[in-house]
Amino acid sequence: MIGRLNHVAIAVPDIAAASDLYRKTLGSDVSAPEALEEHGVTVVFITLPNTKIELLEPLGEESPIAKFLEKNPDGGVHHICYEVDDIIAARDRLLASGARVLGSGEPKIGAHGKPVLFLHPKDFNGTLVELEQA
Amino acid sequence: MIGRLNHVAIAVPDIAAASDLYRKTLGSDVSAPEALEEHGVTVVFITLPNTKIELLEPLGEESPIAKFLEKNPDGGVHHICYEVDDIIAARDRLLASGARVLGSGEPKIGAHGKPVLFLHPKDFNGTLVELEQA
Repeated sequence: MIGRLNHVAIAVPDIAAASDLYRKTLGSDVSAPEALEEHGVTVVFITLPNTKIELLEPLGEESPIAKFLEKNPDGGVHHICYEVDDIIAARDRLLASGARVLGSGEPKIGAHGKPVLFLHPKDFNGTLVELEQA
Repeated sequence: MIGRLNHVAIAVPDIAAASDLYRKTLGSDVSAPEALEEHGVTVVFITLPNTKIELLEPLGEESPIAKFLEKNPDGGVHHICYEVDDIIAARDRLLASGARVLGSGEPKIGAHGKPVLFLHPKDFNGTLVELEQA
């Protein structure tokens, strides 16, 4: 069911410093920061040959990553995103297996403009999993 | 400098249950478990079209992931591994930039039979980073 690893998202306290680290120290291709107000994050994309790393910095008071950074002030891996062909079929298969989908259970439009769902970390080895319809 | 994302490693308390989850619920290609006594882990490889997920379960009393699982009993993302062409050149560049390499600073032979180094999570946004000479 799951396909490519679309991205690994790393929450960071300072996206300018983290961008510098990936650009200069690790020698990667790092995009300019984009403020995604409706998602409560500023994001940069690090393009690797086979997938992407996304750095996320909280934006605004309702940022969904604010609590994560309170608990992990240095930052850390926030979620991993797998691609699926059909997000409704994927959701229904997951629900039938007893896995919990976060929120209303209806896909939302994610940071890449595509339908996404998040799965409960307790059901996936302590890992927040995003599914994105590719 | 860094190339492909070689794998994301997820520490899990029960590798049989986690394998079942990835095989049955997420519909992935999951290998049989391999006990790597010299690394203190039992590992399974989940093959995605563009990269791998590795599930790690502690093996033996000196397992390097035992403490992580004490702190994160459900499991969680333990490290991410980037490929480099030349691990000595990569190490020297990192050290010159002030980043800390764990252990003696000399590459060890990792779980895939290739030279690896681990970088200090405090220097990489709270994320344990493995470099593997591809």
